[in-house]
Amino acid sequence: MGSDLKAKFLEVYAALKSELLNDPAFEWTDDSRQWVDRMLDYNVPGGKLNRGLSVIDSYKFLQEGKELTHDEVFLACALGWCIEWLQAYFLVLDDIMDSSHTRRGQPCWYKLPKVGMIAVNDGIILRNHIPRILKKHFRGKPYYVDLLDLFNEVEFQTASGQMIDLITTLVGEKDLSKYSLPIHRRIVQYKTAYYSFYLPVACALLMSGENLDNHVDVKNILIEMGTYFQDDYLDCFGAPEVIGKIGTDIEDFKCSWLVVKALELANEEQKKFLFVSEDNAPHIYMSAAMGNGMLILENYGKEDPACVAKVKELYNTLNLKGVFEDYESKSYKKLINFIEAHPSKAVQEVLKSFLGKIYKRQK
Amino acid sequence: MGSDLKAKFLEVYAALKSELLNDPAFEWTDDSRQWVDRMLDYNVPGGKLNRGLSVIDSYKFLQEGKELTHDEVFLACALGWCIEWLQAYFLVLDDIMDSSHTRRGQPCWYKLPKVGMIAVNDGIILRNHIPRILKKHFRGKPYYVDLLDLFNEVEFQTASGQMIDLITTLVGEKDLSKYSLPIHRRIVQYKTAYYSFYLPVACALLMSGENLDNHVDVKNILIEMGTYFQDDYLDCFGAPEVIGKIGTDIEDFKCSWLVVKALELANEEQKKFLFVSEDNAPHIYMSAAMGNGMLILENYGKEDPACVAKVKELYNTLNLKGVFEDYESKSYKKLINFIEAHPSKAVQEVLKSFLGKIYKRQK
Repeated sequence: MGSDLKAKFLEVYAALKSELLNDPAFEWTDDSRQWVDRMLDYNVPGGKLNRGLSVIDSYKFLQEGKELTHDEVFLACALGWCIEWLQAYFLVLDDIMDSSHTRRGQPCWYKLPKVGMIAVNDGIILRNHIPRILKKHFRGKPYYVDLLDLFNEVEFQTASGQMIDLITTLVGEKDLSKYSLPIHRRIVQYKTAYYSFYLPVACALLMSGENLDNHVDVKNILIEMGTYFQDDYLDCFGAPEVIGKIGTDIEDFKCSWLVVKALELANEEQKKFLFVSEDNAPHIYMSAAMGNGMLILENYGKEDPACVAKVKELYNTLNLKGVFEDYESKSYKKLINFIEAHPSKAVQEVLKSFLGKIYKRQK
Repeated sequence: MGSDLKAKFLEVYAALKSELLNDPAFEWTDDSRQWVDRMLDYNVPGGKLNRGLSVIDSYKFLQEGKELTHDEVFLACALGWCIEWLQAYFLVLDDIMDSSHTRRGQPCWYKLPKVGMIAVNDGIILRNHIPRILKKHFRGKPYYVDLLDLFNEVEFQTASGQMIDLITTLVGEKDLSKYSLPIHRRIVQYKTAYYSFYLPVACALLMSGENLDNHVDVKNILIEMGTYFQDDYLDCFGAPEVIGKIGTDIEDFKCSWLVVKALELANEEQKKFLFVSEDNAPHIYMSAAMGNGMLILENYGKEDPACVAKVKELYNTLNLKGVFEDYESKSYKKLINFIEAHPSKAVQEVLKSFLGKIYKRQK
């Protein structure tokens, strides 16, 4: 069934792509049609497709076993693809901003010699495809305007999350005391949780004729889930051949869960190990938040692989793997309790299916 | 009246900005609020504001002299600002893609040392503000969904225009025969005309309760207007202190109206002057479109100011200024004829007011 569904999903991708490449709102040239064709194939369908597929899964649960019509399957797939398109848009642009090298096991799109900064516009094109798909297939539905509002709000939240991520990194390089669990939580919640966890279920709810205002509890559980299950741990310790990219959080001085935990758990000696200045004299930064001195970075935020290795070594010394596993299983139990308190069995199934997919994942 | 209107318009900017900086869909940090505040002031209100102001002008004409209520003025201003936000979004990202240096008499946003590639996300934030403004102020209006569709379609067309601009330049560097008047027309029409000419009037029409499907003729005239009055001429010959930027079309190998005209008017000798290879031996490129040989570039698309000067010299030799003026006045007459054939006096006024603003402009 899973692979049947995936085949169907990929079939819908081909149909949507063909519509987009012949969109009458634009006078295509052969060159531009070819460009978009390649750009889509390179950036849209190559991921795990979890977000997209879960629209269909969720919709099925909400229909409580009723057989879906062809039309319903197509529409759920189309909404799933809108989320994959949104993801592709963010990834293409994030990779430029983070100077990343690889993504999904291949060079980042902007890294291709012929592409370069044209990738910025390609990101915009990807983003613009979403309302084209929605207009073509949902314009007549009673929930069309809610769908537009939903995608707009979630995109706004994601871009805002990316903004605090970027700004926190900028400020953190001068004052590391800004890195804390609450700011980390906020980055993950806005940058990832809304579009990865809430959006697929919200799409399924709208298709089922539900008013999203009546499902704030579902939203809260999904956001909570998305906030616990960030992939900072994978960025650092995941196998590149499995996760399809080489994590650069340490090099990029990111406010990741791991560095925040390390700052929390490290003794002064170990902090020095992480953050000792160039000349080896510990420079002291005053900081209201930390109460006392902050040492600037020697090893964090450096391109040098030896520095990166030292940071990972400290993470191991502090047993962050164990801390993470402990945190993960506690979060799991807490979420199961939340979910089982929900009045609707169908909604419980949707949420449990989500949780099952992400708990103890390797990629 | 004009300066009164502008003062009112700027007042509405302050109100919209303050709403956006307190948008409840996001948990702001002080740093992020400050960042967006500065980013907006730097990028949104510093232009000529023609596009934004013309929403209000157009709406007034469509109301045929009826006094506007405070609410109507506010809403027309808000739509005007949505177009200015859209413009800011495109300019911030275009400047990155074109490696521009200055914009509106100041360094481009991405050129500021603290900004850099964060500008990509700032562009996205600007874009996301538009649906925030629309939702807050137009959610209850009968034309809300049409407004969303309109902005989505026009953004798609603009991004598609930018795409053929970028791709044509990429391809043109290998085969200059791709540069022709039809492709130039298509770039300008999609990249500029829809959002600069059609969008303001379409906003005013929607606010007036009109169905845009009944005004395809208005759209066609405005697109025609926008296609004639591109600013390639200003990019090359405008005074930087007046236009607020240093044009880089020649350096960037752009498919501009001037180079297309030059290719059309130059004799073989002059083409060589423009496009002779490094070793001075004219390299021949076969090309179906030109029929016979194409010489690769010596002076076009080079950073060297001496090369740029030589190109401008050839433009002068070919009297492109005269050719442009002739073309401009012919276009003007043609458009006046179109406009006067329109059945509605109010619509005629809207269109003539537009035409008056752009004919023989200096910036």
